[in-house]
Order: sequence, then C-alpha cells, then structure tokens
Amino acid sequence: MQKIEHIGIAVKNLEESEKIFSALLNSTSYKREFVASENVNTSFFRNGPNKIELLESTVKGGVIEKYIEKYGEGIHHIAFSVLDIYAEIDRLKKEGFKILNEIPKKGADNKLVCFVHPKTAGGVLIELCQDLNIN
Amino acid sequence: MQKIEHIGIAVKNLEESEKIFSALLNSTSYKREFVASENVNTSFFRNGPNKIELLESTVKGGVIEKYIEKYGEGIHHIAFSVLDIYAEIDRLKKEGFKILNEIPKKGADNKLVCFVHPKTAGGVLIELCQDLNIN
Repeated sequence: MQKIEHIGIAVKNLEESEKIFSALLNSTSYKREFVASENVNTSFFRNGPNKIELLESTVKGGVIEKYIEKYGEGIHHIAFSVLDIYAEIDRLKKEGFKILNEIPKKGADNKLVCFVHPKTAGGVLIELCQDLNIN
Repeated sequence: MQKIEHIGIAVKNLEESEKIFSALLNSTSYKREFVASENVNTSFFRNGPNKIELLESTVKGGVIEKYIEKYGEGIHHIAFSVLDIYAEIDRLKKEGFKILNEIPKKGADNKLVCFVHPKTAGGVLIELCQDLNIN
C-alpha cells in the first residue's frame, strides 16, 4: 500500500458531478473512460499525488446504481497503489481479509485491480491497483 | 486543495479497528488523539503522502455514533490540505458550496479545519485543513 491512488465517488450524472468536483477541486477532469468490467463511466481529477474518480452506472441495476439507491451519492471506495498486486492479495488473505476477485481484472486508468470485501475492512470497500506498463 | 490530507473512517471501537487497519495498511497507528471540538477519539496511520484517521465517538449521540447508526461503519469524510483555509472558504462560498463552520476550528493533528456540507458536494463530507505552525 504505497499511497491513496484514488477515491471513487458514486454519482448519478457524470456531467453534473464533473461541474461540482471541478468547482470543489478548482481543476478540471483530465479524462473520461468507460470501464467495461464494472459497467461504469468514469471521470478523473488529479489532486496532488492523488486522484478523484467519479463513477456513473451505465447499466440498469449496476453496482453503482444499487449503491446510490442504498446510500445516496457519495464515496464508494478507496483505492491504494500497490507494486505487486498478487503479493498483496496473498498477504491480505493471510491476514483474514476477504478478496472479492482473487484474479485481478483490468480496471480504469490502465490498472490491474482487485477489491477487498468491506465486511472484513471496517465497512470500507478497498481497491488495490497496480499500474500496467503494457498497452 | 493540495492533496488528500486524510480519509476519516467512522468506527465503533478504536482498538478493534486499529487492528484491522494495521493489518490492511501493513503499518501501525502513529498516534491517538482526543479531539474535543468533535467529541471523538482518533487514531492516525500514515500511508505514503496521505493519512487514514479512525474516528470513535466519545459521547452518546455524537456525530460519529449517529453516522454509524445510519450508514454503518465506513468512510466518513475526505480531508484536503489547503495553504490558506480562509481564502479557500471564500472561494468555495462563491462557487455555491455551503460551509458548515465558516469560522475554522481546531481539529485533530494540529490543524485548523472546516467542513463543506455534503449536500452541496456530491454527497461527500469534505474537510479543509490547514497546518497550524503554532503549538
């Protein structure tokens, strides 16, 4: 866990929320990206060494839509940078954390990602992400 | 907004949650602090350029206890570092954000802090914090 890579925020409408977070962060989104593995449209803001990722569902009944129905718009997950995602998965499993996908998948922003179940992590959905140098 | 200073996480039991986040982050809490202005006990972890702050209510019916009753344990707020909290409050007010305390107060970790209402910030409780060099 090197640093907070990004904070993922569940939003209803990407364009409207981009305006809010542009004003809040005093910067503009540097990219939008559709993430097929999660059925979300994302929009990224830089904030010093960290990023803010807005997440909008692209499917009815998708995870982000369900999250918003239950909790309202807001923080969905914290993603931490790791150098070796496979080693980190092994370490966390040994510590008793439940890994939601033990085989990492391609996430947004050219990353290999996996998630840790919030029930084992103090109610926080944790993402691990490793930079992919291929592409 | 220079960077994510910390992420605040609402917990029921500080000692139990310190164990979870120690295992997760592969590090140990570097300090505990009681914050009188918020009626919370806090525990801090470093993670690269960022921090994780665990928050446990010290009073019946306090904000953290109410938050947990409503949403369960989990991410409570994002705090951003600012160089001049008064200038940032002015800027955000002009952008239409509602500031919860326009007069900054003494927060944890020797910071001057204020909060932005989540209803105006995409459902996210935002804290601004400026380092205090006095003390």
